[in-house]
Amino acid sequence: MSTDLLTAEIEQLPLVDHHVHGALRDEVDRAALEQLLTESDRPVPAWMTQFDSQLGFAIRRWCAPVLGLAPHADPGSYLARRRELGTDEVNRRLLRASGIGHYLLETGYKGDDILDVPGMATASGRRVDEVVRLETVLEDLVRAGVTADALPDRFRETLAARTATAVGLKSIIAYRYGFDFDPERPHDIEVAAAADTWLAACEDTGTIRVDDPVLLRFLLWCGVDRGLPIQLHAGYGDPDVELHRCDPLLLTRFIKNVEPYGTDLLLLHCYPFQRNAGYLAQVFPHVYFDVGLGINYTGVRSDAVIAESLELAPFAKILFSSDAWGPPELHHLGALLWRRGMVKALTAWTDSGEWDVADARKVVRMIGHDNACRVYGLETPE
Amino acid sequence: MSTDLLTAEIEQLPLVDHHVHGALRDEVDRAALEQLLTESDRPVPAWMTQFDSQLGFAIRRWCAPVLGLAPHADPGSYLARRRELGTDEVNRRLLRASGIGHYLLETGYKGDDILDVPGMATASGRRVDEVVRLETVLEDLVRAGVTADALPDRFRETLAARTATAVGLKSIIAYRYGFDFDPERPHDIEVAAAADTWLAACEDTGTIRVDDPVLLRFLLWCGVDRGLPIQLHAGYGDPDVELHRCDPLLLTRFIKNVEPYGTDLLLLHCYPFQRNAGYLAQVFPHVYFDVGLGINYTGVRSDAVIAESLELAPFAKILFSSDAWGPPELHHLGALLWRRGMVKALTAWTDSGEWDVADARKVVRMIGHDNACRVYGLETPE
Amino acid sequence: MSTDLLTAEIEQLPLVDHHVHGALRDEVDRAALEQLLTESDRPVPAWMTQFDSQLGFAIRRWCAPVLGLAPHADPGSYLARRRELGTDEVNRRLLRASGIGHYLLETGYKGDDILDVPGMATASGRRVDEVVRLETVLEDLVRAGVTADALPDRFRETLAARTATAVGLKSIIAYRYGFDFDPERPHDIEVAAAADTWLAACEDTGTIRVDDPVLLRFLLWCGVDRGLPIQLHAGYGDPDVELHRCDPLLLTRFIKNVEPYGTDLLLLHCYPFQRNAGYLAQVFPHVYFDVGLGINYTGVRSDAVIAESLELAPFAKILFSSDAWGPPELHHLGALLWRRGMVKALTAWTDSGEWDVADARKVVRMIGHDNACRVYGLETPE
Repeated sequence: MSTDLLTAEIEQLPLVDHHVHGALRDEVDRAALEQLLTESDRPVPAWMTQFDSQLGFAIRRWCAPVLGLAPHADPGSYLARRRELGTDEVNRRLLRASGIGHYLLETGYKGDDILDVPGMATASGRRVDEVVRLETVLEDLVRAGVTADALPDRFRETLAARTATAVGLKSIIAYRYGFDFDPERPHDIEVAAAADTWLAACEDTGTIRVDDPVLLRFLLWCGVDRGLPIQLHAGYGDPDVELHRCDPLLLTRFIKNVEPYGTDLLLLHCYPFQRNAGYLAQVFPHVYFDVGLGINYTGVRSDAVIAESLELAPFAKILFSSDAWGPPELHHLGALLWRRGMVKALTAWTDSGEWDVADARKVVRMIGHDNACRVYGLETPE
Repeated sequence: MSTDLLTAEIEQLPLVDHHVHGALRDEVDRAALEQLLTESDRPVPAWMTQFDSQLGFAIRRWCAPVLGLAPHADPGSYLARRRELGTDEVNRRLLRASGIGHYLLETGYKGDDILDVPGMATASGRRVDEVVRLETVLEDLVRAGVTADALPDRFRETLAARTATAVGLKSIIAYRYGFDFDPERPHDIEVAAAADTWLAACEDTGTIRVDDPVLLRFLLWCGVDRGLPIQLHAGYGDPDVELHRCDPLLLTRFIKNVEPYGTDLLLLHCYPFQRNAGYLAQVFPHVYFDVGLGINYTGVRSDAVIAESLELAPFAKILFSSDAWGPPELHHLGALLWRRGMVKALTAWTDSGEWDVADARKVVRMIGHDNACRVYGLETPE
Repeated sequence: MSTDLLTAEIEQLPLVDHHVHGALRDEVDRAALEQLLTESDRPVPAWMTQFDSQLGFAIRRWCAPVLGLAPHADPGSYLARRRELGTDEVNRRLLRASGIGHYLLETGYKGDDILDVPGMATASGRRVDEVVRLETVLEDLVRAGVTADALPDRFRETLAARTATAVGLKSIIAYRYGFDFDPERPHDIEVAAAADTWLAACEDTGTIRVDDPVLLRFLLWCGVDRGLPIQLHAGYGDPDVELHRCDPLLLTRFIKNVEPYGTDLLLLHCYPFQRNAGYLAQVFPHVYFDVGLGINYTGVRSDAVIAESLELAPFAKILFSSDAWGPPELHHLGALLWRRGMVKALTAWTDSGEWDVADARKVVRMIGHDNACRVYGLETPE
């Protein structure tokens, strides 16, 4: 009975997805969809299919019924049904059935391929706020034209304007360099010098992609000064990542340097370093974390990842995210697998009498909703 | 039936807690208690409570009944009851109900706030032996007055005297520097030079806190020569730690250098590196480990940590500790959660017929009692 | 019913053991056997026995009945029975009962003590193909006589000849140096210079053991050019290993450098870095992994290790190996514990309806058999 209340709480909670991207704008064929079901950017080899993975099995198990198919529908039938319903209906169904009540949308990656803030609000019927990617603001500024000397000031102005209504910032320094960067704030003179070299390289190569560590640190510190919560990609991601350099523990000195400024730091995903993130969240008041991304990609094993995230960190320091990008299956599963993992862990602990049911319900609300509202200053109608 | 015997063995074994500190000497209010329920040294933020954590839930579940309250008593009632009973009675109840039969007390940290060796013996009614912290011996020597040139010899003499009846030594080089230190023994000339710089700094700052790597290594090697088992804090701890530099694997070369001397090394806590510690304990005859501290702080999830500690290491190389400091709740839970995790793991393995019950009972006695007696040369009446 | 089909599939699948060594050629006494049940090369201390370990318990539980004893037979009886049956019969029984259908035998380590390719084929009654250890080919070449200048070309010729019928190569750079090596291909001039120094040292010391990083890298790149799949020892192993330098993530740049050549890389064992290996196997099409060795040494806990291996990697990228060397107990348990772990994980997932049984059966065939056949180009009668 009391377990039923806990399960209901978990299944009905309107989640705040504190780090997520837009759902796909256009139809995709099977090859394109498979390419979006892996963090690999390499073509899927002919001798395998991404459907033969934890994520692939989870899609067939859980998303097929949302599209009106039997559980475990084969990939061919699933793709045919997707086509039949059309992108808008697939998005609408999977997003709405997710029970996500509020999306904090990170808009800095391949924005043309996916729904923007209003598009996601329409598709989901839910509130959507924006999280701004620091690196994209700089790259857009360079596209618009800026000199190296002017870059520091121009970036600060641009960031202020670009984030006027944003609720948070995002850094991908993990991807572009690694967490073993100099934890000190760089001087504007250093920044301008680094910008000089980088802008020349941009001109030479025709590619605007910031990966200079001085510039990436500059962006982070501008974010610290801006004062909005800063999300940091940590752990697992695409092959750009050198994963051993994305262990959030490598941020320890940077975390200490940021502490006096009062800016919150949110470690995203963290797989397989979720226990390390839990340590940081316990000892530093301004550090939070989630295990998004890892949840989707580990499928039926995500219960283990979620359970590991519930160790050292006080429950006020853990958040929910799907980190979905593109296929709305990822938004849907992010929420569904999180709920499943929380039901598994928490009902076991209340059934054994080791956790109190009212406490467990509170923890669910904290992680799935309340912590994000507090950190991002959200007003939510729920 | 045979499972009952195993469970009884686990629940009744008088544990040797091979690394523990004293229980609190004085009353604490809620704010002070919460501060002692985290490894963070930062004030607990106003928007959260440390009771909303695995450790907080475990205290309310398991310690409340020992104080005569219902399980899951709310924090307010719990604090009121603590006050009502008084520190001595709270200590007496929680220590005695723990079933710990013998404490190896590490006395080097904030000794004024907690019970000393006789105090713990009185409160617990059990035998208490001492483990001496190397860094504290040096810092006390400096307080008493020593020149840089005389420091190496004076430290060796002082250590010999200070450890005349001690059963072990403790190093916190993990906290003060990290495990990525030079694994070679430093020469006295280097030590005196480092001491010269450090003593001057002590005078300047008025603070006596050794964190020079040459001096820390010197202490370790004096410990090796002294021949008592050396406990090394490893893994998780307060924010002084840079956790990625406290992976016990970083000790590999030091471990090899110590091997010819025959001194045992005991890796404490190790979370989240318990599997790494298990590897070291398998391949090096003089290396042991425990998963104390991590057990308390992961609460209901400590069963997973304990199970992970039972992988590579031969059972003769694993020990029990609570690493409790201050609130006797930590002493109590350290024992209780260890017993719970062992019951969970070992009864599953005997129920499936994969482990023999007599073997399982022997393993419990080894880890909870016999290994510590052998390593520390304890005479125990039990 | 459908679960029965899955269990039967797992238990009856003729496994391809893609990385394994020969079974013992001669009788061993208890001391010698215990020394082979640990990765430690130190003598087993008098106060302990290797039988008090997960591996020891697993042998007594699972191998004793194959030799006609009751489960959990005590070590003394087990040794007596082993002696009674004789080495050939012990090998025959344990190998055949393993259900391994095809052995890829790595022949480069202490070949005189263990069965060779024909010997294993006779003992097991199964097909055996060879995997050649790169370092052994070089060391044999030096024994035969080679000058430093001629070494690069002579090694390439020798490798071609030595691997004419081999199905794969093996590198132990993890043991001999670590994975933090320069990921670039060395020039022949550098190789000759390193060889000059090394050959002089060989002459001085009378020991031929390659541990120069330039030479080790040269071997790897010769392997890449040879084009056969390359197995890399990763993670846990004997005390030669500095385990933190054997995290497969440290190979990231080398993996990227090899990618254009089309040579497959197989990360062996990987414990406790199996999740890191899963990441590499997801994002790089030419990277595969297994959790052999760790399975045997964690015994009843190997189910947890196997489950962790089933997270990020597509199922086309995971393989089975026992990594057994010497006691045929290790060959037997490698297979038995893998089957046990797969039954545990996969039946839980099919019982809950989260995985489809037909899918689960396919995954078993992929990991236990089909992936190895594809990667190594095996023709198997099964």
